[in-house]
Amino acid sequence: MNDRFLRACRREPVDTTPIWIMRQAGRYLPQYRAVRGKTTFLGLCKTPELAAEVTVQPIDFLDVDAAILFSDILIPVEAMGVPLEFHENEGPVLPQPVKTAADVQKLDVFDPTDRTPFTLEAIRQTVQALHGRVPLIGFAGAPFTLAAYMVEGGGSKSWLGVKRMMRQEPQLAHQLFGKITETIAQYLLAQVEAGCKAVQIFDSWGGELGPEDFEIWTLPYVQRIVQAVKAKHPEVPVIYFGTGMSTLLTRMKKTGADVIGLDWRIEIDVARSILGDDVAVQGNLDPTALFLPKEEITRRVEEIIRRNGGKNGHIFNLGHGITPPTDPEMARHLVSEVHRLGRRS
Amino acid sequence: MNDRFLRACRREPVDTTPIWIMRQAGRYLPQYRAVRGKTTFLGLCKTPELAAEVTVQPIDFLDVDAAILFSDILIPVEAMGVPLEFHENEGPVLPQPVKTAADVQKLDVFDPTDRTPFTLEAIRQTVQALHGRVPLIGFAGAPFTLAAYMVEGGGSKSWLGVKRMMRQEPQLAHQLFGKITETIAQYLLAQVEAGCKAVQIFDSWGGELGPEDFEIWTLPYVQRIVQAVKAKHPEVPVIYFGTGMSTLLTRMKKTGADVIGLDWRIEIDVARSILGDDVAVQGNLDPTALFLPKEEITRRVEEIIRRNGGKNGHIFNLGHGITPPTDPEMARHLVSEVHRLGRRS
Repeated sequence: MNDRFLRACRREPVDTTPIWIMRQAGRYLPQYRAVRGKTTFLGLCKTPELAAEVTVQPIDFLDVDAAILFSDILIPVEAMGVPLEFHENEGPVLPQPVKTAADVQKLDVFDPTDRTPFTLEAIRQTVQALHGRVPLIGFAGAPFTLAAYMVEGGGSKSWLGVKRMMRQEPQLAHQLFGKITETIAQYLLAQVEAGCKAVQIFDSWGGELGPEDFEIWTLPYVQRIVQAVKAKHPEVPVIYFGTGMSTLLTRMKKTGADVIGLDWRIEIDVARSILGDDVAVQGNLDPTALFLPKEEITRRVEEIIRRNGGKNGHIFNLGHGITPPTDPEMARHLVSEVHRLGRRS
Repeated sequence: MNDRFLRACRREPVDTTPIWIMRQAGRYLPQYRAVRGKTTFLGLCKTPELAAEVTVQPIDFLDVDAAILFSDILIPVEAMGVPLEFHENEGPVLPQPVKTAADVQKLDVFDPTDRTPFTLEAIRQTVQALHGRVPLIGFAGAPFTLAAYMVEGGGSKSWLGVKRMMRQEPQLAHQLFGKITETIAQYLLAQVEAGCKAVQIFDSWGGELGPEDFEIWTLPYVQRIVQAVKAKHPEVPVIYFGTGMSTLLTRMKKTGADVIGLDWRIEIDVARSILGDDVAVQGNLDPTALFLPKEEITRRVEEIIRRNGGKNGHIFNLGHGITPPTDPEMARHLVSEVHRLGRRS
């Protein structure tokens, strides 16, 4: 197996910088759109053979060093009992948001083998299809991010719904966060047991919280998830990623994650000097840099690799998901340039 | 005149910490909603007597140390020739976005006395109504933020439209940014000449750019605006505020602004240690902290004042605009607690 990615997660020496791309299995790829045309977005998440097919596509096409399961962070939210809809070209809609104590009470801390068997089957089929070429990454959303969607009933600019619950009904909010945490820990463990070799916790809206609120509402919950994974599978790297969280780096490290995922708002050497050398980093090219001419993309890749300074423990990635209008050829160029420029002599 | 605010902008000693609140004249106030009921949002911006009335309201009600003109950052965009609409409870819509070289060519670097006389008249009437009680702050949007709206035609999650123009037609984008810069410089100068004693540049989406892009697309343009104001009115403090920009602080300082506005994602002492003591700071309570019980608000105010460590050059504010569902009584509590806890012995 190409184990560059796992070695970098553990800060071991590598032959060249490993790379994968957030949302690498997605709309920018014509081969993805062809499969997606057969069903809905949720249908694709829940049909193991199709989910496995699109998960493997970027391994063939891009030559990235890891696969990441095609799914959505809201799949376990639906499995907890909150109805979920996706409408074409729009964000998720949760028509029955979680607002009251009764709503929180009703939420189901489910058994993944029972309620999300399609996820585990997609993992098994992907692992088979990968033939040991690269490791498969599992993932889940972080408690604040999932709670934010559950309380708002969809996307939001200010996430005022969940924040008002945190401010005005803290006990209820802690109950909600606790239930999500327990669920996500089980969900990630089941993914590992089905064959994932690493897991990423996505805190998409984690940067909406200031330092003090991060310590109350995020750190203890993410810590619990990391500990639950590590207790049973100490060898499985945990990546913790969020956007707009550059002021929270030392606190993110306290979660116990092996790898901290960076967005594009901070230089990687600045982030590493804050984080110290005992944790790996992932990132951090601006996804919109892929709209630059090839030689400019190369220059920006060079800059990130130069700033990393040859240190172990760097997984290259974008600072956020690849955007649908990206030319797939530019993603290929990115991967080959990272492999070329990251080569250790 | 209560000159605490201006003294703090200049890092001079003050009797107590000055405070004003972003969007202090706004929907959370019933007295604002009463005036707003008489006309549309744009109508309110363009009717000097009404704009002056709502601008003064929070001075009476909250006892803040500065007034800020009631207006919108997109007013000069409309005056440049880009039609602008506001629909009830929604973001702005620009039905004829700026996409092509011809669109940029057509944009008008206007004379504010000619195209936005209502803004200047609102300033004159506000200054009269304030009877010298507190200084009036003028404002404008920063070039990237305004260009983002102009190219997208409204709000966006990823601002991919303007970023693609920056990546793929950099010359055209620089022309656009240049025209906006020239316009905004004239617009702010006219505001000062009409009676504003300080100006704030709002870079609402400034944090969407990474460090390298900030240096290409923001720093030189904001610098030019600051220099234009300073060249004619060296005594007028310039505040530069953006959200999600905590990784850009040293670069924000290079704009030459007198005051750097912080969002709530960074502790004020951390920000000050990065910025150094030769620039003032404004901020930085999380706007959603106003949903906490009063004693918790007090505790968070105490924490910010403690972290500022008694240094000159701190203007208290929220880290972003006050949100419409805020209880006005909590805003009053905030102001009185800042004045009480910020008192120099």
